[in-house]
Amino acid sequence: MEWLNTPCQLPDARVLEVALERQSRLTKPPGALGALEAVAVMLAGLQGREQPCVDKVCISIFAADHGVAEEGVSAFPQAVTAQMVQNFLAGGAAISVLAGELGATLEVVDVGVKTPLFHPQLVSQRAGDGTANSALEAAMSQAQLHLALQAGADALERAHAAGADLFIGGEMGIANTTAATALYCALLDAPIREATGAGTGLDAAGMAHKVTVIRRILNKHRQHFHDPMETLRCIGGFEIAALTGAYLRAAQLGVPVLVDGFIGTAAALVALRYQPAVGEWLLLSHQSAEQGYKFALAAFTHPPLLDLGMRLGEGSGAAVAVPLLRLACALHNNMATFAEAAVAAKL
Amino acid sequence: MEWLNTPCQLPDARVLEVALERQSRLTKPPGALGALEAVAVMLAGLQGREQPCVDKVCISIFAADHGVAEEGVSAFPQAVTAQMVQNFLAGGAAISVLAGELGATLEVVDVGVKTPLFHPQLVSQRAGDGTANSALEAAMSQAQLHLALQAGADALERAHAAGADLFIGGEMGIANTTAATALYCALLDAPIREATGAGTGLDAAGMAHKVTVIRRILNKHRQHFHDPMETLRCIGGFEIAALTGAYLRAAQLGVPVLVDGFIGTAAALVALRYQPAVGEWLLLSHQSAEQGYKFALAAFTHPPLLDLGMRLGEGSGAAVAVPLLRLACALHNNMATFAEAAVAAKL
Repeated sequence: MEWLNTPCQLPDARVLEVALERQSRLTKPPGALGALEAVAVMLAGLQGREQPCVDKVCISIFAADHGVAEEGVSAFPQAVTAQMVQNFLAGGAAISVLAGELGATLEVVDVGVKTPLFHPQLVSQRAGDGTANSALEAAMSQAQLHLALQAGADALERAHAAGADLFIGGEMGIANTTAATALYCALLDAPIREATGAGTGLDAAGMAHKVTVIRRILNKHRQHFHDPMETLRCIGGFEIAALTGAYLRAAQLGVPVLVDGFIGTAAALVALRYQPAVGEWLLLSHQSAEQGYKFALAAFTHPPLLDLGMRLGEGSGAAVAVPLLRLACALHNNMATFAEAAVAAKL
Repeated sequence: MEWLNTPCQLPDARVLEVALERQSRLTKPPGALGALEAVAVMLAGLQGREQPCVDKVCISIFAADHGVAEEGVSAFPQAVTAQMVQNFLAGGAAISVLAGELGATLEVVDVGVKTPLFHPQLVSQRAGDGTANSALEAAMSQAQLHLALQAGADALERAHAAGADLFIGGEMGIANTTAATALYCALLDAPIREATGAGTGLDAAGMAHKVTVIRRILNKHRQHFHDPMETLRCIGGFEIAALTGAYLRAAQLGVPVLVDGFIGTAAALVALRYQPAVGEWLLLSHQSAEQGYKFALAAFTHPPLLDLGMRLGEGSGAAVAVPLLRLACALHNNMATFAEAAVAAKL
């Protein structure tokens, strides 16, 4: 696991400056393309090329089960984790449809679905048969945490080898908004009740019960919250750990990441706490409609690009934002400058 | 001009219901795709097909000059209107790049640029050599208003004949945020100072001057504000009138419209006031960063899809939102249902 402490790469300062200067010469009032300007400049700096691009997008979905599901914190039965993995592979899930539309590479990684699955396209890198119940004990052993982090890092190695211009991590795991909410509370000191949302669709009574379960998780593991990796190990889950490993490795290998919503951001918070420099490589894609998401915003330099009221996971919110990045790059690379177009400058 | 009072078409209520019901069966928690669900259902109803699509997108940019520019209300010289028309046609402007990326049809209509332009690809349908100065007199004669409305309606006839799944209207006209702001104030009773923004980049002194000019425009024409078409005639401009004609004709011919930002929405407000049923056909694409935009929101049933801090015009904000509509349709049409994927339903 020595890779875990490899330093993150730095954006290319010279290219950043060239890109910023180019934006000021394009035929538009300065700043008139809003966030699309900042995104193009950021991608140029991260990719180290004056003409950034988002042609090759690699999406990895990490699926795993949560022991805490036995506390009755989800509106859907635990079997849905495995069923949705089949749906990802069969092409019927939202992320499958989106990946197809975007021409993105999609892989599904079993990091620990309760019952092992077999499918020729499924990457099997299991850290266990689901995590332990974090309300009663640590969700993972140290060895399991390492296996899950490694699964994420390995996905990044594959994406990097394939020439990814952008990486998206998705997830599936019944009860994982409970784990993610506990991580928000542990790492951001977010208030439990305000940070706890409906997940896949709990009613008021279900949410009240979820709050009590999250309080038990936090009380059980509070002494570890100064250490982000220990916090992750205690709270889980395997898929969140895989995302954390993927984000860290992306920053080390120099692959920009588009972070999905509530769960993806929980993993990003762990990665940021572990190596703050990882933040340069993370773009937030969308404002999740899950209640606690807003508490994470202060940890990031840029706000999310989209706010569509999405709360599906799977990497779907990040996938929906990919066309914005592509258009931002096309505008940056292909618009005429004032001089080229013989358009008069500002008075 | 009899077409002006042709009634708007109605969404297909049966298809709307079928589409709504299909959304509830797709493999996701109900509502988890947020605004993308509503957009797909709305397009299904408008297009009258259970599988909505946004393959064929027709963009028309209407360009014209404003007499009120002589009051010094813009940060850019008036010559930029014509120069940007050349830039649209040469492929160097933001909307040119976006149309290319989207595979959209792009046409540019001269509705009254100050000095006539000649270009084989330019549609010339001039209502005059720019409008009159609305701070001193009505921007247009009745005949000019009709010519400009007709230019927009004709663009819609072309789009409809070409089989457009979606229409986008863009505009170019130095000083047109002054005209649009005056329309917001006249039609929405928005407070002048709060509704007046920087346009292409005025400083504080420039904005204070713009406020006084807008106040003069409003005082000059106030007695007509009960009549939306008279308000449009008095304030201008030709390109805003063309957009108004385009939106009305779109609703009459049954072509969904993605409305651009501050200027496009001013035209939409006139159309809505003239025929409220046009609203069914208008989707707001993005929250313009121009200060007064927020006052328009209450006039529409759905909020804009994007909020990227854009304020360029040209139809650029609407173009950036096209991929979201396409992905919304793909998800609606191609995701598996719970039954198809054998995924368990909510507990």
